[in-house]
Amino acid sequence: MTAVMTDLEKDFLEYVKKMSAYNEAIGLMYWDMRTGAPKNGIEQRSEVIGMLSSDAFNMSVSEEMAAYIAKLSGKKEALNEVTQKTLNECKENYDRNKKIPSDEYKEYIVLCSKAESVWEQAKTESNFELFRPYLEKIVQFNKKLIGYWGYKENKYNTLLDIYEPGVTVEILDEVFAQLRSEIVPLVQKIAESSDKPRTECLFKHFPKEKQKEFSLAILKKMGYDFNSGRLDETVHPFAIGLNPGDVRVTTKYDEKDFRTAVFGTIHEGGHALYEQNISEELVGTPLCTGTSMGIHESQSLFYENFVGRNKSFWQENYDLLKSCSDGQFDDVPLNEFYRAINESKPSLIRIEADELTYPLHIMVRYEIEKGLINDEIEVRDLPRIWNEKYEQYLGIKPSNDGEGVLQDVHWSGGSFGYFPSYALGYMYAAQFKNKMLEEIPNYDELLEKGDLEPIKAWMTKNVHRFGKMKKPLNILQDATGEGLNANHLIEYLKEKYKEVYKL
Amino acid sequence: MTAVMTDLEKDFLEYVKKMSAYNEAIGLMYWDMRTGAPKNGIEQRSEVIGMLSSDAFNMSVSEEMAAYIAKLSGKKEALNEVTQKTLNECKENYDRNKKIPSDEYKEYIVLCSKAESVWEQAKTESNFELFRPYLEKIVQFNKKLIGYWGYKENKYNTLLDIYEPGVTVEILDEVFAQLRSEIVPLVQKIAESSDKPRTECLFKHFPKEKQKEFSLAILKKMGYDFNSGRLDETVHPFAIGLNPGDVRVTTKYDEKDFRTAVFGTIHEGGHALYEQNISEELVGTPLCTGTSMGIHESQSLFYENFVGRNKSFWQENYDLLKSCSDGQFDDVPLNEFYRAINESKPSLIRIEADELTYPLHIMVRYEIEKGLINDEIEVRDLPRIWNEKYEQYLGIKPSNDGEGVLQDVHWSGGSFGYFPSYALGYMYAAQFKNKMLEEIPNYDELLEKGDLEPIKAWMTKNVHRFGKMKKPLNILQDATGEGLNANHLIEYLKEKYKEVYKL
Repeated sequence: MTAVMTDLEKDFLEYVKKMSAYNEAIGLMYWDMRTGAPKNGIEQRSEVIGMLSSDAFNMSVSEEMAAYIAKLSGKKEALNEVTQKTLNECKENYDRNKKIPSDEYKEYIVLCSKAESVWEQAKTESNFELFRPYLEKIVQFNKKLIGYWGYKENKYNTLLDIYEPGVTVEILDEVFAQLRSEIVPLVQKIAESSDKPRTECLFKHFPKEKQKEFSLAILKKMGYDFNSGRLDETVHPFAIGLNPGDVRVTTKYDEKDFRTAVFGTIHEGGHALYEQNISEELVGTPLCTGTSMGIHESQSLFYENFVGRNKSFWQENYDLLKSCSDGQFDDVPLNEFYRAINESKPSLIRIEADELTYPLHIMVRYEIEKGLINDEIEVRDLPRIWNEKYEQYLGIKPSNDGEGVLQDVHWSGGSFGYFPSYALGYMYAAQFKNKMLEEIPNYDELLEKGDLEPIKAWMTKNVHRFGKMKKPLNILQDATGEGLNANHLIEYLKEKYKEVYKL
Repeated sequence: MTAVMTDLEKDFLEYVKKMSAYNEAIGLMYWDMRTGAPKNGIEQRSEVIGMLSSDAFNMSVSEEMAAYIAKLSGKKEALNEVTQKTLNECKENYDRNKKIPSDEYKEYIVLCSKAESVWEQAKTESNFELFRPYLEKIVQFNKKLIGYWGYKENKYNTLLDIYEPGVTVEILDEVFAQLRSEIVPLVQKIAESSDKPRTECLFKHFPKEKQKEFSLAILKKMGYDFNSGRLDETVHPFAIGLNPGDVRVTTKYDEKDFRTAVFGTIHEGGHALYEQNISEELVGTPLCTGTSMGIHESQSLFYENFVGRNKSFWQENYDLLKSCSDGQFDDVPLNEFYRAINESKPSLIRIEADELTYPLHIMVRYEIEKGLINDEIEVRDLPRIWNEKYEQYLGIKPSNDGEGVLQDVHWSGGSFGYFPSYALGYMYAAQFKNKMLEEIPNYDELLEKGDLEPIKAWMTKNVHRFGKMKKPLNILQDATGEGLNANHLIEYLKEKYKEVYKL
């Protein structure tokens, strides 16, 4: 029931609007730093970002916020639905942040910022011992956090809950075991296949300007609105939603491998469609963003894999790609191209992994994090454990820690519990695809025609528009009628690789 | 004498640093809106800018600020020099802003924001009556402000003081009369000259990308540091200093008239050199910007006219311009080109005026503003008075108000007292040039060699580094040994146009 708004409710919404304003300004400064801000201004800009971040943080744990929570929580049923959910979100943040002693938290922020630069050096030098003391402290602090916040069943659940509320160790253990039992034999079969794709055509010189032209065309076809966004170049690509009318995509051009830009842009474009299509009524509240890392990743991976690596999509777009290129595909039939972009083979680096082996990279990290947090693994044993797991899951072994345990930035920033979101997003995406096929049975035909509008409309109706109004598993349940289910992804992978490798 | 900093002094500096942080974030959002922010996000972005502006404004008139001013003013001699000047600046702002009843001020802000869109329509339709009621209210409010703030000698002095502290009606009346008495006969002589420059070569097709290439090269030669800045495209060019390590230039490319971009970039580059070379110790204080509109304009006009329209400069750069162009200067000797870019003839639009007639455009506005504020002119008579003055000063008459009294945006935003800065900047620039010649007698030779470093160094030593540590007339006095003096500009104009028009 929606009632007339009281002054208290209005004041609360003004208050959160101001926090959103700080975050929007911070977002723009972040984007700017990564797309061409002059380097001599960066240090001072970082201070500005720091000050605005403190403002937003202080507002989230202020006495004023405490008073809003106390006064409004008693009369929730009288509140507008958006206010209710906003209040919940603010309360969760308040409770979480208030429980950490502020001096400890500040110390931790300093630790992480140091740790990141040490990690960079350690990675370059492939020297785990350099990073070890920092990682030990970070793990220690995360355990402390769990002490402050409490936990249910498994300590690691508390960290998972930050990124993917509702998802637990129990759930993950089950789906990951299931995934692994299907993926590992499939990887094996592929390794033994005698009819592998030829991939030489991928690595010819593809001029940057032409890659950009193609990337822009594909974003447009996806339904990305250029009146509400723009495409820029960066070193580590990302998409960022400042508000639904300003959602920016960044990409990277590798003239020796067009896939970096093309699949990267489609991936970030998927994230961007999510942010562009959040309901306008959520602007200025903390609900005006994706509901979780996993659901966000479901959108990027859906477009990257179920659209961008689909043969029908290339039936529509291969000629355009050919015309943008310098002739590298002239003697390559569509089917050969399609097989090439879907090559699968075990590799050491997560971010370069293919669709099939990617979840195995995530499982390695998941098991290590779970073990660390539950005192079953020690930081000093990580290099050995990492290498053993890579051998066990992927059949290959890093020759040094730079391409092994030191490859990801996440742990140096204290992000424990984040990695599983990548794999969850993939499973969610497959579940959405499965459901979508019931409602849009001519899915492939639409791709062939280049008509991606109904696909975007389905995602907007079932996912985008809600922002954080629904928790991730509610989005999934309401959209597909089921909870987390690895079977759809497994089915997809089996079918796809059977075709690509003629198994 | 500089003493050890007290905690109070440190807290005060932290406080102003935060205000600077808001302003830096606002500056970036402003730049972004004018260089490619997606249009659908603008409305929400404007709200964010509004909120951060309120924050900065509220901090400037807060009780906390009042307390700092009260506590620190008593012990100024114990403060660091930067703190002293910062305190003065904060006190001036506090006094000015506190005297305006806040409800009246808010009403005025709304009025101006409406007035600007009405002005746009009025200009397009050339319909002064549409804009008249708004302008009347704005003038009325400015008179009210003078009532709150008080005045010395002449009411208009109070407004002048906002933009150019120390400059008064008495001073301006004198220098403008002097300028006019010399410029008007010179314009007359030029009109009668039988040897006018041929300007057809200016208006050939010059590809945008090539204009950009040339603009970048010239900025570099000027000593603009691209590690502390960047060049972008916009509709109404500007330069903006976010901090000395991030000072951005924008320009506009007209493929039918390369002068827009080339002289526009040099002009904005002059502003940018100022902001890039402010002393690092002023970062995070309100002193970290140009000291006044006039001194800022002295820098842009110095580079635009005394560098960019100097023959020696083109001896060095004409070949590069030729090589960037599509051949439009192939049969044009350097001297003919030099004369063409220095053509002078009376025109109706201020921003398109040449060096010689430009000050006359300013005088028209100055006299009208002075008359309005002193109740000697009524808003309803402006179109008639405007046209009469153009006829009297420039010998031409607008055929409609769109190209007459409605041409500038300034009044719709309430900026009365701003226009004189343009002419002051021009006089300051000529005074700097004159003094510089004593210390750098081989000025022209340096331009011929393309060695602009000593010129920039002179400006940094005498102007740039001080930021707002000195008032404009102190900058002038310390650099040149004299007060405002129109003679140097007059001498320059006489000599230059004698040469260009072979008088």
